[in-house]
Amino acid sequence: MTIPATNVAVSGERLVATYVLSAAADRARAVAEAITVEQTIEFPLDLVADDDIRRQVVGRIETVDEIGPRATRVDISYAAETIGRELPQLLNVLFGNVSLFPGVRLVDLKLPPDLLSAFRGPRFGVAGLRTALGVRSRPFVASALKPMGLGPEALARIAATLARAGIDIVKDDHGLANQPFAEYRERVRRCAEAVRRANEETGGHCVYLPSLNAPAAELKERVRIALDAGVGGFLVLPGLCGFDTMRALAEETQLPVMAHPSFLGANVTHDGSGVAHGVLFGTLMRLGGADITIFPGYGGRFTFDRATCRSIADAARAPLGDIRPILPAPAGGTSLERVAELVEFYGPDTVLLIGGDLHRGDLLENARRLRAAVGG
Amino acid sequence: MTIPATNVAVSGERLVATYVLSAAADRARAVAEAITVEQTIEFPLDLVADDDIRRQVVGRIETVDEIGPRATRVDISYAAETIGRELPQLLNVLFGNVSLFPGVRLVDLKLPPDLLSAFRGPRFGVAGLRTALGVRSRPFVASALKPMGLGPEALARIAATLARAGIDIVKDDHGLANQPFAEYRERVRRCAEAVRRANEETGGHCVYLPSLNAPAAELKERVRIALDAGVGGFLVLPGLCGFDTMRALAEETQLPVMAHPSFLGANVTHDGSGVAHGVLFGTLMRLGGADITIFPGYGGRFTFDRATCRSIADAARAPLGDIRPILPAPAGGTSLERVAELVEFYGPDTVLLIGGDLHRGDLLENARRLRAAVGG
Repeated sequence: MTIPATNVAVSGERLVATYVLSAAADRARAVAEAITVEQTIEFPLDLVADDDIRRQVVGRIETVDEIGPRATRVDISYAAETIGRELPQLLNVLFGNVSLFPGVRLVDLKLPPDLLSAFRGPRFGVAGLRTALGVRSRPFVASALKPMGLGPEALARIAATLARAGIDIVKDDHGLANQPFAEYRERVRRCAEAVRRANEETGGHCVYLPSLNAPAAELKERVRIALDAGVGGFLVLPGLCGFDTMRALAEETQLPVMAHPSFLGANVTHDGSGVAHGVLFGTLMRLGGADITIFPGYGGRFTFDRATCRSIADAARAPLGDIRPILPAPAGGTSLERVAELVEFYGPDTVLLIGGDLHRGDLLENARRLRAAVGG
Repeated sequence: MTIPATNVAVSGERLVATYVLSAAADRARAVAEAITVEQTIEFPLDLVADDDIRRQVVGRIETVDEIGPRATRVDISYAAETIGRELPQLLNVLFGNVSLFPGVRLVDLKLPPDLLSAFRGPRFGVAGLRTALGVRSRPFVASALKPMGLGPEALARIAATLARAGIDIVKDDHGLANQPFAEYRERVRRCAEAVRRANEETGGHCVYLPSLNAPAAELKERVRIALDAGVGGFLVLPGLCGFDTMRALAEETQLPVMAHPSFLGANVTHDGSGVAHGVLFGTLMRLGGADITIFPGYGGRFTFDRATCRSIADAARAPLGDIRPILPAPAGGTSLERVAELVEFYGPDTVLLIGGDLHRGDLLENARRLRAAVGG
């Protein structure tokens, strides 16, 4: 007889992860059972002497629903105590080892209130960004500083032009790091200065967001340089620096954070594995403190379709406890001609991010057209 | 007429990324051309006024080889200057946006000497770990502290038993973070102490590696607690904290780093996208400073086959400039009975990581059998 040595899950609160398994229901149950162990104790169930661990720490299959010939949806719940109150371990329980299982896709998650309260989420969100940037009800417009290879002066000239035209958010291209042709310190100083001056001229509220595409040990210094330069927020690449680093940056800098999907793509490209688009680019970005989530919009250079983009936009703005809704930012080959269509599709709580296409002809004029196209 | 305004790529050094595209050669060339732009300037090529940027910053297609009916291998080179000397931007150029392209898989990379010298790689590597742990020529043996749910005292008892049995490396299960039932500080203090005492008794060199599965803002404090406790290295989850955070930890702590594949799986599960197993779990782990790379071994709970595991082990130990070879650590459901077969397959420069199966019967006896099975 085994004696319960611990009382592990005292709160009784559980989070629920929903997975779609590429298997019929009979086979799917065995996979689901494997997941309950893999994501928690990683230990042969028959060797667990402690009843409490078996009952409370191992995940629990809540529902099993066959949704197609080789597709079964399962809800698995985990005790909140398996997470503690930390984002990396939350991601680890939701999808850590299971990421290595072909045929398992994380498609939804529900966190209990107390666990959700461990994450502040975005500091600004939709409403906060409207106040901070003085954008009452229209969609936001944004552009990127590129092409890579330009020096700080040329990038700053582009930034000034975009700000003068009334663009709300001017961000570094995510590939701007600390390359010799545009070193971070000089680039950020010049671009922030250019946007500040343009704002003085126009009375506008354009913000410049440098790319924190940086080594871990230099992040603090890059943030300090940026704050000294008077930037209005940061572009962060959680696929490279980690979601919790983004969360910490949002918390520490008290400025808006725009998240870029670099290096995260393989999670979403195959239906049968990885993480659903809305979960990755919506829910997890919000838990990670992003105020804006960039993703490849339909109809551009990438292959996301309309339904996929809808699911991301929905997840960005859906109720999530006290965590604020955020702004979806479809991007990747958007042209000026499509603005009306995109506003129609995404609605006003959106950032329209147009990069290269604004340079087709006169930049100032095109940027003004973009700004005018989203209204007053 | 455009006047070259810059001389961007002064060194002439180029890195080469090899991708396999899920397309026949004719269609593949167009995809390859898209990649050369996507991974660098992200800007319409026809709008680039600067000749140097077009010639030097945009990636260059070096070779295009049809290797199957719908598979084409392309080498694309990038100027070293597009990277600077930073790991996040290296990963970004190799696979940042392209991760979002279905049908593009990164299968190899070659870095020029100067760029490679920006990365120290593992501090120990195979030879360094042999010296540090007093393991002359046999395979290393390792185990994990689990199941999750046990308290610090119970985990420390397991650690002591494993160390007494002659296990070389005792690591936290990667899911141990800072949960209420085994808080980090107390757990690490007790486990490190248990291993130290066991070493005193036996004259052994077992090391204890706590899991740095931690929020970004707490990493430094967790490292300090661990160093104060006298740990022998760290378990790091680069899929959650970022590869460069791992690299920085290896550099700062001056202790061995064991990398865990949590949350990285979706990159490898589909042949037609993501990153080849050897690149992700071999080359990139080495650039990220790991001394040991854990991956799911064939024949266990996961689906990796023998060829996959061979490719990881090969990449872990292949020549890579001055960057040291590291130890592959196949894991995930390995049983004691398979030790001889695994040693035969992987060779002596390997860490055999057996967790749950050692608890099937008497732990001390089983751990001794594991140690004996790899020889003196």
